[in-house]
Formats: sequence, structure tokens, C-alpha cells
Amino acid sequence: MTLSYTGIRVRDLARSIRFYQDGFGLTERGRGTMTHGGRFVELEDPSSHQRIELNWYPPGSPYATRYTVGEGLDHLGFVVDDADATVARLLPLGASIALPVWTERGRSRIGFVRDPDGIWLEIESRIRRSPARVGSRG
Amino acid sequence: MTLSYTGIRVRDLARSIRFYQDGFGLTERGRGTMTHGGRFVELEDPSSHQRIELNWYPPGSPYATRYTVGEGLDHLGFVVDDADATVARLLPLGASIALPVWTERGRSRIGFVRDPDGIWLEIESRIRRSPARVGSRG
Repeated sequence: MTLSYTGIRVRDLARSIRFYQDGFGLTERGRGTMTHGGRFVELEDPSSHQRIELNWYPPGSPYATRYTVGEGLDHLGFVVDDADATVARLLPLGASIALPVWTERGRSRIGFVRDPDGIWLEIESRIRRSPARVGSRG
Repeated sequence: MTLSYTGIRVRDLARSIRFYQDGFGLTERGRGTMTHGGRFVELEDPSSHQRIELNWYPPGSPYATRYTVGEGLDHLGFVVDDADATVARLLPLGASIALPVWTERGRSRIGFVRDPDGIWLEIESRIRRSPARVGSRG
């Protein structure tokens, strides 16, 4: 028994593929068509191997209901080298600011953006200590 | 840059930990408290290494908004040995049927259940061919 992936629903499949590939470097692992005409594209992070599946439903499908961003999906978590730079890079790709980047307990920089469908993405980078402090307990 | 996990929001942390641990064998990887009082528990699938983070917000938190199951999180995908048996086992753990298990193109058994918060979970098992057919193109 395995947890295989997280499926998110998207309203424009091409837009979302581009956003997650160009924005985060996810790569396509497979795609297909559902019996009722929906389409899915599975994307994987080549380093962490975490997977998301983009799900798109055609007009008229019983699943093409009104798109509501709910509270069930809290956010997708991304760890990056530089949260501020990543957020700035994502904006022209279709992201919008949800919570501006802040410093969390002196340990990391964290911000939240919305993807093109409004899904919250956490963008976190760890603050590097200066070399002199490595190994210290300070 | 890595996709680290999917964060889902839950309304009863203990209930959800039990559901995902007992229901799917996910194991705890870490937990903590957010600066504003929220709590998170990260769970990992020991075989696929896919991770979800359970997020809980206390009453009064700016994030403890009305809980809406939206369309952004389509579903979490699980691959199991026997979809019918798994669905039956999940019901007394707090799941409810969303779509009863059906046979998909003769290749797999697929059903959807709702977790205790109403999040859709896909439960899929591959149909094993009889040994005589292994390697055939039929």
C-alpha cells in the first residue's frame, strides 16, 4: 500500500504544466485520458521524487463543477535555495503573493504564493549560517 | 529546489493521524508548532516516500477559517493490493464512500472514499493477470 501522489484540479492544463515545470523544475512522468474525458498529467520532482497529478475535466463532465479553492488542501510545500528570489521569479509565471516572505525564528525565509488556480504554495529557504558559526551551538 | 510535501488541513489532529497511520501505514516524520499556535505533523509513506503534512489551526487563528472542501485538492492517490478490501477496512476508521469501487478498463479496481474531513482519496489496485497470460500481448 503506497501513497502515490497528490492530485490537484486545474482549469487550464497547459498553463499549469508550464507553471510547475518552469517554476519548480518538475518533470512529466506520464499522462492519460480518463474514461469520462478528463485528462491527467503526473509530474515528479526529480530530486525529492514527490509527485503531483494535474487533473482537468472537460465542460459537461460531472467533475467539472464550479472551481472552489477550499481548505482541504492547505498548501504544497517547496524547499528552495532562496525564497525571495524564487517568489520574484514565480510572479511573471502566473503566481500571486499570498503572504510576503518573512524570517521565521531566524532559521528560514518563508513566503506563500498562489499558483494560477489560487492554490497556496509555501516557498521556504533555510538561512545559511556564516562559515565561522558552523559547528558552534550559537 | 524540491517539492517537499502536500499539506492538508485537518479539523481534529489526533483523528487524522490515526486515520492515515492506521488506514494507510504512513509514519510520522516530524511535528511542530507554528508561531501563531497552529500545529503540523508530517507523515511519510515508508515505501513510496511520498509525504503529507497535517495542518491544524486553533480557534481564533487567522487560518482557522470555515472549513470548505474545495476543488483545488482533487484527491490523494493510493495504490493498494486490493481496493475492495481496503475500502471496506477504511469505513470503520472514519471514511465514507464517494464513488464505489469499479473495474477500470479491465486493468484495475478503483474507488474513491472521503477521509474524515471530506477529502477524496483514490484507492486503486491493479488486476493481476492469471500466470498463463503473463508475457502475452492479450
